[in-house]
Order: sequence, then C-alpha cells, then structure tokens
Amino acid sequence: MLGRLNHVAIATKDAVKAAKIYGTAFGVQISEAVALPEHGVTTVFATLPNTKIEFIEPLGEGSPIAKFLERNADGGIHHVCYEVVDIIASRDTLVKEGARVLGDGVPKIGAHGKPVLFLHPKDFSGALVEIEQA
Amino acid sequence: MLGRLNHVAIATKDAVKAAKIYGTAFGVQISEAVALPEHGVTTVFATLPNTKIEFIEPLGEGSPIAKFLERNADGGIHHVCYEVVDIIASRDTLVKEGARVLGDGVPKIGAHGKPVLFLHPKDFSGALVEIEQA
Repeated sequence: MLGRLNHVAIATKDAVKAAKIYGTAFGVQISEAVALPEHGVTTVFATLPNTKIEFIEPLGEGSPIAKFLERNADGGIHHVCYEVVDIIASRDTLVKEGARVLGDGVPKIGAHGKPVLFLHPKDFSGALVEIEQA
Repeated sequence: MLGRLNHVAIATKDAVKAAKIYGTAFGVQISEAVALPEHGVTTVFATLPNTKIEFIEPLGEGSPIAKFLERNADGGIHHVCYEVVDIIASRDTLVKEGARVLGDGVPKIGAHGKPVLFLHPKDFSGALVEIEQA
C-alpha cells in the first residue's frame, strides 16, 4: 500500500536561489543547504503543510542530475518520492506488475537515511518515481 | 502563505492506463476518468494519504498539454498545484517578488471548480506551478 508523497524534487543549477521565491512570495519555511557528496547533490527543502519540495543541485563530478540539467537548462521537476511501508514487498509487487526497478534492485540508503529505490520512468508515464521506506 | 500541495499532474497519452499501475502495484484508489472539455483534458486521480496524483490526457483539438506530449512522448510530470488562501493576494505578492503570471493574470475557474492561475516555469526552476484558491 502506498503511503504519503514524501516530496517532489526539482532539479536546478542553484538550489538556494530556486527555493528563495518560495520563502519570499509564499512564506514557506526554507531549510539550509545540505551537501550530500555521496549522492552527488546539494539539497534545500521547502516545507509545505502536507509534504516537501526538495530542490537538488549537482554536487561534484558525475552528479546523477547533471544530464537532466543539460537537457533542461532552466531546471525542472525531476522526480516524485512515495513512502512505502515495506520496500522489499513493494519492489516485488511492482516487478510482478511489470514495472522496472533501476539499478540492481537492491535498496540504497537515500538522502534521508532510509532505504530507497528508483523506478523506470517508462513504466510511470515518463515520471521518475522514488520509493522510500517510511 | 502557501497551503497544501493539492496535486502533482502527470501528462500522458492514456490517463486510465497511466493510473493503472498505481492501483495494481501500490493499492491506491483510482478515480473514474472525467472529461473536462473546457480544459482540453481528461483526468484520472490517484488518491494518496496526503495529496493526489492527477493524470491528464489531451482531449479535443488544441489541448493545453498537446505540445508537452509532443516533446515528451512517454509523458512526464507536467505541473505542481499549490493551495493558497487568497489567490489575488498571492498573485500580487508573486508579481512583486518578480514572478510572472501566465495569461492575463485574471484567475480562471480550474478543473476543480476553484479559481486558479499558472506561473511562469522560468521563475520556478523550470517547474510549471499552478496556484489554486483553497
């Protein structure tokens, strides 16, 4: 069973700048920038009443979002992240239903310290989907 | 002050098919397809505990999502919709902070029967943003 939408991730060349208008025009609480070298991104969060917007900026060589920003110079909505109660059971159900899991199918520890998997955009209407153990 | 993330909209050539895996693999409640000829889309909703995913499919000639689907044949995340308490006050603050409102700046009645405005993606890191009167 699918849980909450944990966050919407927006890729950008400057996460602090991207989040700024959410603070100034929308009055949203904006986090400090946090560098996550092991994930190749710097993140800034905007906290909404029911979910978060995560601004991600490339960090270091070979950032996983570098190619996306080559194709989308202004940035863009990069992925959605859904919470699941049991990531292994969810993965197995997804595969049974014909969805492809990216990488080797073994959950990695994500940016929030919890196991995550990414699913193939072609199986989700072109949307990159992350599932995160709740 | 920004309210809830009302929905994430995913554009697709087949909204019923796109939503299907959310039902089968994630156990999410999927709505019937609803044709909204005045908006040029057919919509299907997947209801999550804290927000909704709205699948939108072109309907009729000159659908506002036709060009997006020409550029993104597999579909993709089309926009995010945030709730605001007072859409006129929010619009005026956004304009003051340098954000551009699409169209003539006068709220239209959106797919949920409430006043909405769309904001220029270039001012929101490439993300098309809809604001909806809560």
